[in-house]
Amino acid sequence: MTGRFDTVSFLSDFGHGDEFVGVVHSVVRSIAPHVTVIDVTHGIAPYDTRAGGLALARAANHLCPGVVIAVVDPGVGTSRRPIALEVGDGASYLVGPDNGLLAPAVGLVGGATRAVELTSPDHRLPSITGATFDGRDIFAPAAAHLCNGVPLTDLGPEIDPAGLIPGVLPVSHVDDGVLVSEVLWVDRFGNCQLNVDPLELVAFGDPLAVNIAGDERIAVRVAAYDEIPTGRVGLVVDSSGLSSIAVARSSAAAELGLHEGDEVRISALDDNRSSGVVTSVELGQRPVR
Amino acid sequence: MTGRFDTVSFLSDFGHGDEFVGVVHSVVRSIAPHVTVIDVTHGIAPYDTRAGGLALARAANHLCPGVVIAVVDPGVGTSRRPIALEVGDGASYLVGPDNGLLAPAVGLVGGATRAVELTSPDHRLPSITGATFDGRDIFAPAAAHLCNGVPLTDLGPEIDPAGLIPGVLPVSHVDDGVLVSEVLWVDRFGNCQLNVDPLELVAFGDPLAVNIAGDERIAVRVAAYDEIPTGRVGLVVDSSGLSSIAVARSSAAAELGLHEGDEVRISALDDNRSSGVVTSVELGQRPVR
Amino acid sequence: MTGRFDTVSFLSDFGHGDEFVGVVHSVVRSIAPHVTVIDVTHGIAPYDTRAGGLALARAANHLCPGVVIAVVDPGVGTSRRPIALEVGDGASYLVGPDNGLLAPAVGLVGGATRAVELTSPDHRLPSITGATFDGRDIFAPAAAHLCNGVPLTDLGPEIDPAGLIPGVLPVSHVDDGVLVSEVLWVDRFGNCQLNVDPLELVAFGDPLAVNIAGDERIAVRVAAYDEIPTGRVGLVVDSSGLSSIAVARSSAAAELGLHEGDEVRISALDDNRSSGVVTSVELGQRPVR
Repeated sequence: MTGRFDTVSFLSDFGHGDEFVGVVHSVVRSIAPHVTVIDVTHGIAPYDTRAGGLALARAANHLCPGVVIAVVDPGVGTSRRPIALEVGDGASYLVGPDNGLLAPAVGLVGGATRAVELTSPDHRLPSITGATFDGRDIFAPAAAHLCNGVPLTDLGPEIDPAGLIPGVLPVSHVDDGVLVSEVLWVDRFGNCQLNVDPLELVAFGDPLAVNIAGDERIAVRVAAYDEIPTGRVGLVVDSSGLSSIAVARSSAAAELGLHEGDEVRISALDDNRSSGVVTSVELGQRPVR
Repeated sequence: MTGRFDTVSFLSDFGHGDEFVGVVHSVVRSIAPHVTVIDVTHGIAPYDTRAGGLALARAANHLCPGVVIAVVDPGVGTSRRPIALEVGDGASYLVGPDNGLLAPAVGLVGGATRAVELTSPDHRLPSITGATFDGRDIFAPAAAHLCNGVPLTDLGPEIDPAGLIPGVLPVSHVDDGVLVSEVLWVDRFGNCQLNVDPLELVAFGDPLAVNIAGDERIAVRVAAYDEIPTGRVGLVVDSSGLSSIAVARSSAAAELGLHEGDEVRISALDDNRSSGVVTSVELGQRPVR
Repeated sequence: MTGRFDTVSFLSDFGHGDEFVGVVHSVVRSIAPHVTVIDVTHGIAPYDTRAGGLALARAANHLCPGVVIAVVDPGVGTSRRPIALEVGDGASYLVGPDNGLLAPAVGLVGGATRAVELTSPDHRLPSITGATFDGRDIFAPAAAHLCNGVPLTDLGPEIDPAGLIPGVLPVSHVDDGVLVSEVLWVDRFGNCQLNVDPLELVAFGDPLAVNIAGDERIAVRVAAYDEIPTGRVGLVVDSSGLSSIAVARSSAAAELGLHEGDEVRISALDDNRSSGVVTSVELGQRPVR
């Protein structure tokens, strides 16, 4: 049997230390054997729905048509709703908790065209133990059934997409000539993605000033990480098309003490306006063999 | 060629830092290209056969019919036997070391109906280097051949299932009105699974008292993690149907200092019997964005 | 459509914390839906091209015929070349950066028979954001197109394989009766692989002396980790056929303070020549449940 979709893309905060991810794969395969499950990532920090929503949005443009399972779900088992969303009038579906996790990715593709609450007992695992693993018991079966061509509305009653919990994303703004931005994401390499379109930086010249928790540093705008001079901070157009703070062959997050959610203030290099304490960074260069 | 099974489920303590897991996948695919390998988990702590056996048992009910490869194998290359077990008269097979790792999962499905020692030189990798990677050299080929429909007894001589190394699992017991239990598993989120059926807790009321290393705390029985009040300890029916100690949106293991194998004593809240030191927990609440 | 290859083997320093790996899988599947992607490992330390090259070489003999994507690429976006190499006159292909990463694996199979620089705009992702994620934008599409049967030379102009950046691997040598070797790899279990063929050790007897940073220890030569006596150091023929320093059921790297790249000096046990300070190791034995 070949169903309507043959790809499930799966993102969670489950990590790889336990058997959670493998069990979800197994449940999908048990119901829809023709489906390939692609792990987007399971490294989202526990309960961090914001980070999960951002990761899904970054990946969304590149995912295969099909069904997305996304699970970062501190409220599992409570009254928060398990949902399935249709996007693009049936081009793809997303299943997960109604807690804002799906919102950034869904917003990118124009919003949900339909939505249901996943209440159908016929489309959950038959014998459910506890109420703590909806990924296994509700989301994986729903995704597999959608891949098999089961109509969305068989999975539960339609709900108004306008009533879904929104994702709240910070927007950068200019305050007295300073661009006030925020770190959206620190990646494996310590690059710090800002909520800043590279075009917004043009007005500030090159190099420009970056202020982190009161410390001001000079940053150069470059196209590649390895073009950042040793001991300097760079601003790179990253793989999402946003501006990332980086250093060459080391972790900007570690060198600069940056974390997701931290504020970064960007301004023109201007001795009159600047604090007078413009320091180059002392980098403990990572040994590369 | 389509063989008898098209799914291998694979669990190990290999981690994802080295190429071990990828090499096992490659060997299975080289011999049985039609097979999909599902990674149950590779995050078992090195050499921890007890934790590996428990993880496999928790996952077992949800795995697809086919062949399980399980490798947590400190005795690799010694006289411990590499084995393949048949369960359900051929419904599925498990391959791995005879060190108790497979025992809990096999026990769950009624025990092995047949067993062989994996000695056939024709069903190992042809040129073996060293004796330290039986996952690659013995277990992956055996699993792939079973998927291809090779009879179990072609893989080596039959051995008596009754002579396999058993898994030793702790059983909770009541001692002078106190339920003496043990932490079986600390998951990614810090939830601490006990060897306690939720029905055993009814006799102790709600809330009840939980004693960890001499410290007594009040615990509430709830259905979902997020129903645990801030600053309180909860007992939740978890995804295995056992009782887990949890706190809301934080790690119970970290807050309470619990590890796998630790003893937890559960009793009724009773001022006369209790130590007199019933303290609510001070939780450093995890910031959730 | 079924193309020329149906397996991509994928190695990187991307880790599993971000969505990088999942996005590469998705891009391959979007272009070549019939392909299975096997993750060799993504746990290479960031930027560590030497470790990545060694891991790929260790795995190479066991990979399925097809296309390898390897990405450890600190110079992404700079003038370093993105390349595709043909080995075995078309038996397999490797794509990645021209920075020495592919060299050890390619050398193992007799060198590249042809090579191209990946410049074809028709075989990259159509709309590229930034210049920081060639795995997604260049390498994954190239691999998928090769699997679909696109000729190598459609991907870009041929370049001279002799002009590729070589991998530099340390060679052990004998100096005044002492075998001076180096740790190539510390694995998940703390075993320390040396650049030493086991045959080279025969001349030094058994047990022999191992000198690490001036501390001399007695080491026994054994066939299996668990044959190493408690409190002793062993030399084991590992899964690559090289000599590894190990201790039983614990981490030799942790016990002995060894890291990748460290020097290890091996000599015969000889009271006259030895330092006179031959100490057995005090091991904090890892508790195994």
